[in-house]
Amino acid sequence: MSVRDPPPPSMGRWRSQRPPPPMAFQQFEQVLSEITITPLAVPAADAADEADVAAVCALYDVDAASAAAVVRMSWEGTSDWDEDETSAGTTVLVVVEDEPGAAAGRLLRSVGYTEAVPAVGRWTMEPGGAFVLVTPYETAAAVERIWFATRDVRMRVSEIRTGGGRGVLTASFSTEIRRLS
Amino acid sequence: MSVRDPPPPSMGRWRSQRPPPPMAFQQFEQVLSEITITPLAVPAADAADEADVAAVCALYDVDAASAAAVVRMSWEGTSDWDEDETSAGTTVLVVVEDEPGAAAGRLLRSVGYTEAVPAVGRWTMEPGGAFVLVTPYETAAAVERIWFATRDVRMRVSEIRTGGGRGVLTASFSTEIRRLS
Repeated sequence: MSVRDPPPPSMGRWRSQRPPPPMAFQQFEQVLSEITITPLAVPAADAADEADVAAVCALYDVDAASAAAVVRMSWEGTSDWDEDETSAGTTVLVVVEDEPGAAAGRLLRSVGYTEAVPAVGRWTMEPGGAFVLVTPYETAAAVERIWFATRDVRMRVSEIRTGGGRGVLTASFSTEIRRLS
Repeated sequence: MSVRDPPPPSMGRWRSQRPPPPMAFQQFEQVLSEITITPLAVPAADAADEADVAAVCALYDVDAASAAAVVRMSWEGTSDWDEDETSAGTTVLVVVEDEPGAAAGRLLRSVGYTEAVPAVGRWTMEPGGAFVLVTPYETAAAVERIWFATRDVRMRVSEIRTGGGRGVLTASFSTEIRRLS
């Protein structure tokens, strides 16, 4: 796969790990989660899905019918450090293009990663195929970069920056491998 | 710093670590190296520098005077696992634009990272400020993404892909912090 090919589809089930498999000592810090991304129709067939889509679209004054994509993303995580500690969540994502076909726009999220409130971020699809999402929160900003290394391997670096963007509070790297079964 | 600002200069001394500071358990796998990037004049003032520039430019049929940048990059690394194990190296980098002002081109390297031979890669400066470099080697390809999180913090993900680009052999994430003293 060349870096100039269009990115493969993100729909499906993904296994997320940190760091990527070949690195030494992964057993000490491997974090696994499973991510499932499912496209939603507009209006959504399921009443709960439709309620979430309608709520977040109303909050940000977006017509769901004009969105480039509407998906539900769910995740469930486990930590090797504490098997009792799991995290799980689900969110509706609405991808809005600045204009039809634009490589940038807004991404509405019914629940944010770092704060359990709805959020809106700016996304850009870089020519090389990296998806960059900047989401400002009240006291910080999340910057995520996601790109495909192969059709079935996505890489993600998530940074949390201070609200003004002048400092980096934390950053993490994970690899997401498509589950084919 | 917005992701749309032009990237800050890379010249200077950088301290590289993996993973970035706030991650847990960094003491188990912190890899530190110091990277120094120094601009070279064309022709270079130092005879050894000039010989390296001339050799790599001749190999790839490039006129050094037309290069967008010529630098020497040196690194010295230590591992927390084995204090006796250090790695050090130095290389001349010649950045060539496809045409003046272009956001893509070739990067000549007098010595490569993964193989101790000269190498030429394709670079792209993404609109969001990420520098993406793809360097094919005989049996593999290195893909590096470097971007500034702040003026003084660079992030780097290095992937080694199989020659055909269909598999990822390894990937690593490091943070580079500018040394201000």
